[in-house]
Parts: sequence; structure tokens; C-alpha cells
Amino acid sequence: MKLLEERIRKEGRVLPGGIIKVDGFLNHRVDPKLMRAIAEEMRRLFPDEDITAILTCEASGIALGEACAEVFDVPMVFAKKAKSDNIEGGLYKSEIFSYTYKKTVTLIVAKDWLGANDKVLIIDDFLANGEALRGLVEIVNQSGAKLAGIGVAVEKGFQPGGKRLREQGVNLHSLAIIESADETGITFREDN
Amino acid sequence: MKLLEERIRKEGRVLPGGIIKVDGFLNHRVDPKLMRAIAEEMRRLFPDEDITAILTCEASGIALGEACAEVFDVPMVFAKKAKSDNIEGGLYKSEIFSYTYKKTVTLIVAKDWLGANDKVLIIDDFLANGEALRGLVEIVNQSGAKLAGIGVAVEKGFQPGGKRLREQGVNLHSLAIIESADETGITFREDN
Repeated sequence: MKLLEERIRKEGRVLPGGIIKVDGFLNHRVDPKLMRAIAEEMRRLFPDEDITAILTCEASGIALGEACAEVFDVPMVFAKKAKSDNIEGGLYKSEIFSYTYKKTVTLIVAKDWLGANDKVLIIDDFLANGEALRGLVEIVNQSGAKLAGIGVAVEKGFQPGGKRLREQGVNLHSLAIIESADETGITFREDN
Repeated sequence: MKLLEERIRKEGRVLPGGIIKVDGFLNHRVDPKLMRAIAEEMRRLFPDEDITAILTCEASGIALGEACAEVFDVPMVFAKKAKSDNIEGGLYKSEIFSYTYKKTVTLIVAKDWLGANDKVLIIDDFLANGEALRGLVEIVNQSGAKLAGIGVAVEKGFQPGGKRLREQGVNLHSLAIIESADETGITFREDN
């Protein structure tokens, strides 16, 4: 998606260790016009009329998930990272390793909000090692719902998450795939 | 806002300890049509043409914050709860006590995304003790930005947060104010 690639090229910053900061428009300050454009591109890529829910993960997937929910006209469910007392029993759970926080966290979704009659599109802002998305797929499987696919805004193509998911046959679309990023600049995968 | 009150009455659940669960449409599964309706009501209540940013707090404020950002046609910034290595220096910070997690957490916003030229509308899904909103107001003050006001979806009127903020002269609008909630039902403040 050219619009997103141009935005990353113009406003993204590369930090040591291959960290790519896009926090001016995607995951700290959020540009709602860009979210809407990404959501419309997701609708084009996932035209299935029978999608019943968008599933994402707190916190940085929520803004894009909400924009997609509006465009797809379905509810958005966001998996929580377990820690709150307000969440009782009746949960789907998946343990993932968070590279951001360098520890294992448990993603949880209340069973009330996903079930065997659902067809789910998973949405996230970023794909690197793919742990969060692996956890969300596991939750969809636990619920008995069908998985329509996974839509990601920015994939770090030089990290293994995207390759793993594609090898498993997941219908994954990433709107901008970064092949390399260093102080000299950012290169995107051409066949994107 | 009648639409929101009816939704709370119909789908909200009251748990022991005055916990009100609205996780079927507001803060776990999110109804994008309701978010849009709330955002349009916020636009009516805060007609200031010179608002430059929506500020909210991760995680459950983000969906409504995004919907408001789209309606107000301004960026949405969400304060993070400090824990990530991806956030460097140059931060506004405010320590708050999280009643949900029963510990002190630090809200952070990168200085890049708020400054003295901004006029900020704070948005959140819930107001009870008001700690998160107190922290967000402190961050707005640190940035030198003007505060247009605070828009909240659901206020628990029997907890002290809303009263404190109004006594400080903050322009606070809560779209549904719950006066009491127990197993017999939910009562809303009439003059809302």
C-alpha cells in the first residue's frame, strides 16, 4: 500500500536493533484518516461477506481494529493481556512471549464474545516475531470460529513471524513489508 | 445520552463491589456504531473548532478515542502505561494509582506529540475514581497545551472522580452517569 509505505519512509525512524518507530501516526499518535484508508484496503483484501468480528490485541492494535470494525460493520473484540481483577472465568487464553516487554504474557478473550458461529478477521498494527498473532489464532481455534485471515499494517519482513504464518497456510496480508531498515533508510518488499 | 443508557440497562451487568461490566459493547467487545454515535455526541458537546488532538489512555479508551479522532478530524494520542523498552526519553509522565490493577502505574506520552500549540480534548470510556483522567490532565498541563475538556462515556457517579474534576473547574461531560447499581438494577442521574 503506497500511502502507508510513503508515510513510513517520510515519518518512520529506525533505532538501533532494527526497531522501527512509527509512533507519529500508527501506535502512539494515531492518524484517523490513515486508519480509515488502511481499513478500506483491508476490506478490499478480505471481501468475505460473512466476517462477523474483527479480533485484535491491546493496546496498539485497537485503533486500527476499531477503524476496520467500522468499515466491515461488525464488532471488534480486543484480547487483553491478563492482569485485571475485572475479568472472571469463561476465558479463551493463549500464552505468548512479548519481545517488547521481554516476558510471557497471557492473552485472554471472554468466551461470551467469540464462538463457533463466528468468522474472524484478525487485525494488528505490527508483525515481527508474530507471537501476538500466533496467540490470537490460537484463541480463534479455541473458540471454534473460522479464521478469515490476518491483516497487518506493517510487517518486518526480516523477522520470522510472517514467514511462519504463511507456511501454516494463514491468509495473511501485510500492507507494508519492510525488508531492511538501518540508518541509510528503509527498503520495502517489492512484490507487496 | 439515551442510546448509551439503554444499552447499559439492557446489556450491562453488575458484579459484587459495584463493578459494572459493559464489556459486550464498550471495553472488550466494541460496537463501532455506538462508538460513532458517542463520538458525534462529543462533537456536539465540545464544538470548539480549534481542538487539535484527542488524548486518551491505553487500553480501553483507544477505540472511543479513535472514533472521536475521526469525527473531530484530528490525531488521537494515547498515553501508554510505562513498561516498554521502545519508549526513549522526551516524555511527559504522570503517576496514577490503578484501582483495576491495584498498583501505581506511570502514564507516559512522548513530548513529540503534544505541545503548547495544542488544544486537547481528553476522552475515556469510564470514570470512577478519576485517577487516569487526573494523570491525563497533568500530562496536558506539562505539555503547555490548552485543555478543551474531558468527555467520558460512562461515569460511576457514586465514586469520587467526577465530583473532583468538576470542582477543579474542568469542563467534564459524561454521557451516562450511573447513580447506583446493584442486583436490583442500574439507576442513572436524571439531569445528565
